[in-house]
Amino acid sequence: MCYCFLGAGLTELKILNSGCQVDVSPAKAYRGADEKDLKKGSNLSTTIDALAAENLKPRSHSVNYVSSDYESLDYDHYESELTVREEKLNGYKTVVATNVIRWLIYFSIAICTAAVGIFIDTIIEYLCNWKFQSIRNCIDVKHSTIECLIIWILFTVIPTIIGCCVVLFMEPSAAGSGIPFVISYLNGVRIPRMTAVRCLLVKVISVVCVCASGLGGGKEGPLIHIGAMVGGSVVEAWWKSFRNGPGRKIIGPLQNDQERRDMMAAGAAAGLSAAFGSPVGGTLMSLEEGTSFWSSSLMWKVFFCAAVAFPTYNAGKNILFTNHTNPSESVHGKSIYFFGKFNENTIYFSYSEFPIFIIFGIFGGVLGALFVNINYRLSIFRLKHIISNRKKLLESVFVAVFVAIVNLTTMILLNNCQKKLEISSFNVVQMFCPAGSYNEISSFWLHTQEENIRSLFHYPIEAYSIFSLLVYCVTYFILTELTVGLNMSAGLFLPSLLIGAAWGRIASKVIHYYSPGIIGNDPGKYALLGAAAQLGGIVRATISLTVVFIEATGNVQFLLPLMITLFTAKWTGDFFTDVQMEKKNSWCLQTYNVVHLDEV
Amino acid sequence: MCYCFLGAGLTELKILNSGCQVDVSPAKAYRGADEKDLKKGSNLSTTIDALAAENLKPRSHSVNYVSSDYESLDYDHYESELTVREEKLNGYKTVVATNVIRWLIYFSIAICTAAVGIFIDTIIEYLCNWKFQSIRNCIDVKHSTIECLIIWILFTVIPTIIGCCVVLFMEPSAAGSGIPFVISYLNGVRIPRMTAVRCLLVKVISVVCVCASGLGGGKEGPLIHIGAMVGGSVVEAWWKSFRNGPGRKIIGPLQNDQERRDMMAAGAAAGLSAAFGSPVGGTLMSLEEGTSFWSSSLMWKVFFCAAVAFPTYNAGKNILFTNHTNPSESVHGKSIYFFGKFNENTIYFSYSEFPIFIIFGIFGGVLGALFVNINYRLSIFRLKHIISNRKKLLESVFVAVFVAIVNLTTMILLNNCQKKLEISSFNVVQMFCPAGSYNEISSFWLHTQEENIRSLFHYPIEAYSIFSLLVYCVTYFILTELTVGLNMSAGLFLPSLLIGAAWGRIASKVIHYYSPGIIGNDPGKYALLGAAAQLGGIVRATISLTVVFIEATGNVQFLLPLMITLFTAKWTGDFFTDVQMEKKNSWCLQTYNVVHLDEV
Repeated sequence: MCYCFLGAGLTELKILNSGCQVDVSPAKAYRGADEKDLKKGSNLSTTIDALAAENLKPRSHSVNYVSSDYESLDYDHYESELTVREEKLNGYKTVVATNVIRWLIYFSIAICTAAVGIFIDTIIEYLCNWKFQSIRNCIDVKHSTIECLIIWILFTVIPTIIGCCVVLFMEPSAAGSGIPFVISYLNGVRIPRMTAVRCLLVKVISVVCVCASGLGGGKEGPLIHIGAMVGGSVVEAWWKSFRNGPGRKIIGPLQNDQERRDMMAAGAAAGLSAAFGSPVGGTLMSLEEGTSFWSSSLMWKVFFCAAVAFPTYNAGKNILFTNHTNPSESVHGKSIYFFGKFNENTIYFSYSEFPIFIIFGIFGGVLGALFVNINYRLSIFRLKHIISNRKKLLESVFVAVFVAIVNLTTMILLNNCQKKLEISSFNVVQMFCPAGSYNEISSFWLHTQEENIRSLFHYPIEAYSIFSLLVYCVTYFILTELTVGLNMSAGLFLPSLLIGAAWGRIASKVIHYYSPGIIGNDPGKYALLGAAAQLGGIVRATISLTVVFIEATGNVQFLLPLMITLFTAKWTGDFFTDVQMEKKNSWCLQTYNVVHLDEV
Repeated sequence: MCYCFLGAGLTELKILNSGCQVDVSPAKAYRGADEKDLKKGSNLSTTIDALAAENLKPRSHSVNYVSSDYESLDYDHYESELTVREEKLNGYKTVVATNVIRWLIYFSIAICTAAVGIFIDTIIEYLCNWKFQSIRNCIDVKHSTIECLIIWILFTVIPTIIGCCVVLFMEPSAAGSGIPFVISYLNGVRIPRMTAVRCLLVKVISVVCVCASGLGGGKEGPLIHIGAMVGGSVVEAWWKSFRNGPGRKIIGPLQNDQERRDMMAAGAAAGLSAAFGSPVGGTLMSLEEGTSFWSSSLMWKVFFCAAVAFPTYNAGKNILFTNHTNPSESVHGKSIYFFGKFNENTIYFSYSEFPIFIIFGIFGGVLGALFVNINYRLSIFRLKHIISNRKKLLESVFVAVFVAIVNLTTMILLNNCQKKLEISSFNVVQMFCPAGSYNEISSFWLHTQEENIRSLFHYPIEAYSIFSLLVYCVTYFILTELTVGLNMSAGLFLPSLLIGAAWGRIASKVIHYYSPGIIGNDPGKYALLGAAAQLGGIVRATISLTVVFIEATGNVQFLLPLMITLFTAKWTGDFFTDVQMEKKNSWCLQTYNVVHLDEV
């Protein structure tokens, strides 16, 4: 399950692998055992036997080459006589106060995560707008290609260097999406500095730089890690603020591995909930991807956090962006639905389209497996050859320059002109096109990712030509492959969605050409399913993605097509991705298979 | 969590309590322990030590007064060298074949559960129609109140006697909703005869009788148990069909506690998915309510099953009922959405309504806690005084007669006349009303529960008077209290929804009276939230109910109001229901608290 995120950073690859070789002392293993005994109804004496046996055992299974920093966490809940006695001593009021404080902490985690999300969004929006204004100025006003290329390269390289340097020299563990970290942590592997405030800061800076520079990385994955870090930091902050007072007794019981794990799981869900406007989907993703030690009380703490983060984030964005946007419900309007609302009266499906959904799923699964495979090879290559910080930085700069050149050359070579759409097309350049029209591919490179996904879902069928879409799809696939392995905070969600939406739109154009009756003038349905298939093929989640898509489109109607596509994509992807690789990387978290670093 | 369902049957109360005193042999406890060790990374030698220690331990914790029939199940996955060797001996093809067969089994579970659901629905529909025709005939044509009362009593008492007798004399464990059974089973308590085919048959007959007789019990809860039983039976059927052939090797690995538990969890989800047309909600309910031993692979098996059951059930109902229904999208049309689709253009909410949602949640929580409390006292009363089968049968007959008399007297006393609505009002009686109008309360007693919930959600605000709604709400509350403890298969879901929708509609009328601007002419929003609050206050589930409501209304818009209401309802309910009771009943499944039967 976690394999797909693995390529996202070399550091993560190492940590994830080594995270599985964690040294578990027999004491902990036995403590786990006695909990299990108790749950199954046995009495304490068996436990005592087991604990006595512990002293006889040598630590035969310690793995020497794993850093002693990595330790395992203990998520079992203790209910010993001592705990009960302590609770009695503290009194009923303290227990109630602890409960109230716990919920307050969850509430503050949600608010903080949403606030960080809004902060990131605002800066990205501002930087992208600045970049676009400068580029349009030099293309459409000054007509100087060389100057434009230089400006474009600067606008890409400078943020890349900043984003890469903070990661390399301040906090290497902030690289990649961070989801493998979260998964490791939620499954019991303590990773050093994972919840440090410095890591949070570096992550925020890096993700802003990636998105502003136009590299093929999204902010949604990092937001999950950021949410988890906020979760860890908030409980720490509460503890530090109140431990030297009467609050010590109240917050004390919240200072253990289990509570912290719960709070980080809740933060991760809040991050996704804010990113996609999907509280239920965020909760499910946090559970489906992350938390193996699962309980019903955890589920609803997580859901509470996600439920608070979602409207907070939305309200914040509404307040900040009301000046910029059109008051009417345009596709760019900061609507409550991340993908923009689909009109249920114009878009519908019939049972005869089911084979198409299955084909979409298969195609998405194949492409997803391909992505995962290439990513794996790239990661290995990087792990072998790009070792020093200097090389890593150079690699990032190289990718950034490549992005800028590809963007500009595709715009010049594919000078498809497109009439200005009424809906919204302020982020486009006219280039060599006549007045009132614009260069088609420019909208892809100059819009933010969010705007792109909405336009791919909602613009009428003639808005993009097949050729532009194909170029965009292939180029973006390559850019994403290159980006997700860099030493920056880049996620996979939105890039995958964009790739999928692009080929889904191509498919809709082809289908429209041969039988116009099926889709009418609205290719959004197939763009949506393409995006689902592509993301499903890479991430291999089913139920959580279904819910995310439903919540992000505000449309329950596509439940069935989405389920079919996501299931097929997962199956196909699982079939194609080599079992050996899965064993090496993802099993380590799901089962207890020990992976040796030198095997990679 | 399970407390709310407890009152549903005395047998269950006993079983659930005694189910927690299960005798776990040290061998099993230790086997569990060694799995945990392995997971945490220790090696096999600790396990062997533990197993050696086992022989020294007496079975000190066996509880004598618990039937030896109850045994614990083992849900841990073994991955020993022996397993691996056996797999190697069988060859790769067998392993693949086992996997394929596993998915086929899940597929057949989904199809069978949906088929049973369709069967139940069809018979209930037929019987209700017959009952209605007879009653209308004697009221509107013959004008004979006494004859009508006799016919009504017969139509209520005869199914009640049948439904009660099959349970009492054939399979006492089929009483109640069966959800506590499912929860117990999914948490590791083997309950004898729980998956027997006889239990399945008795359950189906009993649930049909309850719904046809007009008692206050729903078919949704039993459908969850039925789904779980189908899950257990289908894997049994596959095994019996193929064990004497080359298939033995292939199906053999699927014959263990873990696989069976997974299949029963999937069946339960399929049942709910079919009942409410809610695949994601069904999956979540199965996880939130039932399965403590949770894993991501289980989640998506369960989701697959729910995803197949939903369209199957829908397609089946569409084929069967197309003749009866209006082709236009009426509230009675067998639309894909169980609650009927809400029109997003006429129903919306503003942030200023949030206090109302919170008040709704509090009210629902209080009413839910009241329901649970009364139910608990009733169960205790029944446990003490209604012991013999004769008394149990008499009690059921008494309740049935009471229902018939209450129905008819309310109709006669509250002779509110209502003009015939254009939408659909074929299941109503004219009584003493002038032509073209009908007796208002009659629609409540003569419609099926599904029709009632849709009409409460979708009829315009003048369709029902406050007084009728109040009478219906109070009467139905009492009827449900009486019904859910009888020795019949009756669930709580739909009755709770009806009670909640009724008071939600009353609230909407009151709000409309004081400030008509808020709701316009459409009280459906508050009826929906009332239903959510009432069900949430009784069942105390949050995330799964939110999703069920979204899927059943086909509307993502109400995500936020639903979340607020359900959270408040859960919190309020948890605050009011006595902790002592929760300890006695629900903790036993969530933790390892041993409850003694004689304490009750």
